[in-house]
Amino acid sequence: MTGSVGVVTPQLIPFETPLDLERGGRLPRYDLMVETYGTLNTQKSNAVLVCHALSGDHHAAGYHGSEDTKPGWWDSYIGPGKAIDTDLFFVVSLNNLGGCSGSTGPLSMNPETGKAYGPDFPEVTVLDWIHSQARLADYFGIEQFAAIAGGSLGGMQALQWSITYPSRVKSAAIIAAAPRLTAQNIAFNEVARQAIMRDPNFFEGNYADHEVIPASGLGLARMVGHITYLSDVSMGKKFGRRLPRDDRDAEGVNFAVEQYLRYQGEQFSGRFDANTYILMTRALDYFDPTNTESMPLPNVLKSTKCQFLVLSFTTDWRFSPSRSEEIVDALIQAGKPVSYSRLESTHGHDAFLIPDATYERIFKAFMDRVYRDLGGDE
Amino acid sequence: MTGSVGVVTPQLIPFETPLDLERGGRLPRYDLMVETYGTLNTQKSNAVLVCHALSGDHHAAGYHGSEDTKPGWWDSYIGPGKAIDTDLFFVVSLNNLGGCSGSTGPLSMNPETGKAYGPDFPEVTVLDWIHSQARLADYFGIEQFAAIAGGSLGGMQALQWSITYPSRVKSAAIIAAAPRLTAQNIAFNEVARQAIMRDPNFFEGNYADHEVIPASGLGLARMVGHITYLSDVSMGKKFGRRLPRDDRDAEGVNFAVEQYLRYQGEQFSGRFDANTYILMTRALDYFDPTNTESMPLPNVLKSTKCQFLVLSFTTDWRFSPSRSEEIVDALIQAGKPVSYSRLESTHGHDAFLIPDATYERIFKAFMDRVYRDLGGDE
Repeated sequence: MTGSVGVVTPQLIPFETPLDLERGGRLPRYDLMVETYGTLNTQKSNAVLVCHALSGDHHAAGYHGSEDTKPGWWDSYIGPGKAIDTDLFFVVSLNNLGGCSGSTGPLSMNPETGKAYGPDFPEVTVLDWIHSQARLADYFGIEQFAAIAGGSLGGMQALQWSITYPSRVKSAAIIAAAPRLTAQNIAFNEVARQAIMRDPNFFEGNYADHEVIPASGLGLARMVGHITYLSDVSMGKKFGRRLPRDDRDAEGVNFAVEQYLRYQGEQFSGRFDANTYILMTRALDYFDPTNTESMPLPNVLKSTKCQFLVLSFTTDWRFSPSRSEEIVDALIQAGKPVSYSRLESTHGHDAFLIPDATYERIFKAFMDRVYRDLGGDE
Repeated sequence: MTGSVGVVTPQLIPFETPLDLERGGRLPRYDLMVETYGTLNTQKSNAVLVCHALSGDHHAAGYHGSEDTKPGWWDSYIGPGKAIDTDLFFVVSLNNLGGCSGSTGPLSMNPETGKAYGPDFPEVTVLDWIHSQARLADYFGIEQFAAIAGGSLGGMQALQWSITYPSRVKSAAIIAAAPRLTAQNIAFNEVARQAIMRDPNFFEGNYADHEVIPASGLGLARMVGHITYLSDVSMGKKFGRRLPRDDRDAEGVNFAVEQYLRYQGEQFSGRFDANTYILMTRALDYFDPTNTESMPLPNVLKSTKCQFLVLSFTTDWRFSPSRSEEIVDALIQAGKPVSYSRLESTHGHDAFLIPDATYERIFKAFMDRVYRDLGGDE
């Protein structure tokens, strides 16, 4: 029987030591918004770090109240008896630096000016996130994570962890990710950024000063993103060439898919910060574990010490199976232990979020083995 | 030896009979901007109609002056000794109704108001284009085209011709096309339209009244479109993750591909009309030869009487080979003669425009056979 972690309460954890950033900036201090599920054992060996994707946050599992109907973004895979079993593991999930869900980001007060950072928030990278997450591990007294897991940009963080802190990661689950973005991936991110920046309410990121948000541009950015998260197959199944169900709020809409995309765009622009969206897409664009090391990926991976699980989904065209296989091939060349599965799915990139029996079984088998390997620690 | 048709001069041909449109509008009169290459034989049997794609026009081959360095859009395949051999064929190429290159469209004067149509230009469909092109054939005294050829939306016109005017088409070359758009195709078009409509200079299409153009939105629309015309492979080859070559006009640009896309967007917004772009994408969305007939494609194709050539390109993901194969399968089911080739290319959807030896050989072999089959007519 699998269940829910139930009602969870996020906690804001302050870090007062300055953090020097990869691209030159510096945060004098920062907060991380964090949720945890399950119990840390006395050896502090059963911790799992969950990393979020582009528009995700710390709320990965459970509910924020008894009336809450929408669980965390990875609730299908985190909970009692689930793949990341909270009866076994202590799960740590955070909103990354630069985010807009409570962690220090463009919406936070810049202590140097007394007003929100806005567009002046320094550029952050995956490497910066890893360092901030290592401090979060220190806060909990976790010397080594039993596993670090994530999908998409979250998977990239798991990969970077295995390279940057090899002794602090026993296993990494890298799902629907890629070792770096292609020109086409960057191009889609650039269109999204341009959509935001060309909104007259953007004011070069200083929209808060004008008491507006670039809702139109941010909505458009989300529409573009959304197409890349779904597959041609899943859009075909969901909408095909059907007409919209009703005409409410649908001026000029001719097909159901148009109405759906506009709705998704509007919802998103009401809940997400435009400066954060730009910052997160930039972090994605820059991500390349071979950059800092100046050597090919197999060489970079030589220093890793963990077990790897790599999962891809057949209809994912944002980060297609062949991109995951680049990671797998590099790991094999580096002589590292890796389990790989190319999962059948019609859901495109979004498949990493969606309940699926085979995905669940393979992910859970890997995590259960991670737990058994903790062995004498228990 | 293949050559150029040389310097060509477009002609504006007036049609004074009203045209009732599929979606309910009516044009009291219209002009078509047309180019022709080669010579119509006395039997008027050697005419080839070339149909353009989304942002194409009548200028398919040759140059507009001795100083002109950029030939027509299909110059690689139209000319003496080329696939559509102008030593053999009389080629007719036009700007479609609703276009912005001289044919009657949103930029033209509405005779009922004395000012430009702008957003009041009626919706036109592929079927409307076919009818207007049939009148163009009448103008030249062409009872039957030896061939109708086009790529992308141009291929869809060739397909519709074979269905709507079976006795007036001896052969149809349908290149990089699809029998109808998928939800994903429509979604990309919708993002492009929204980019234009959300530009504050759009003024619901009445930008001319305000003496502005929605350049920012139109540029963004082109950026989205451009990504779908190229392949992941060709973008990778052309740009990869390289940095921009120089910093001119590239504020905030981090990768060469971003600079390229912005440049493409700017160029396009200077030469194309936003209302036409919206109208053309709508015509694409609506295109579905099974709509008017209310029966499956093989049944619709039963009435066709021509030879078909269908060509697709391996890395085309806008209209992938499997979409062309839907047309081929339907033709085979209908018992119609069809030659099909799935051509290797790294150029994505744009491949239909780009010189390639195998594409040229196959296209030319088909067209040469079309010419030989004219037989006694010569």
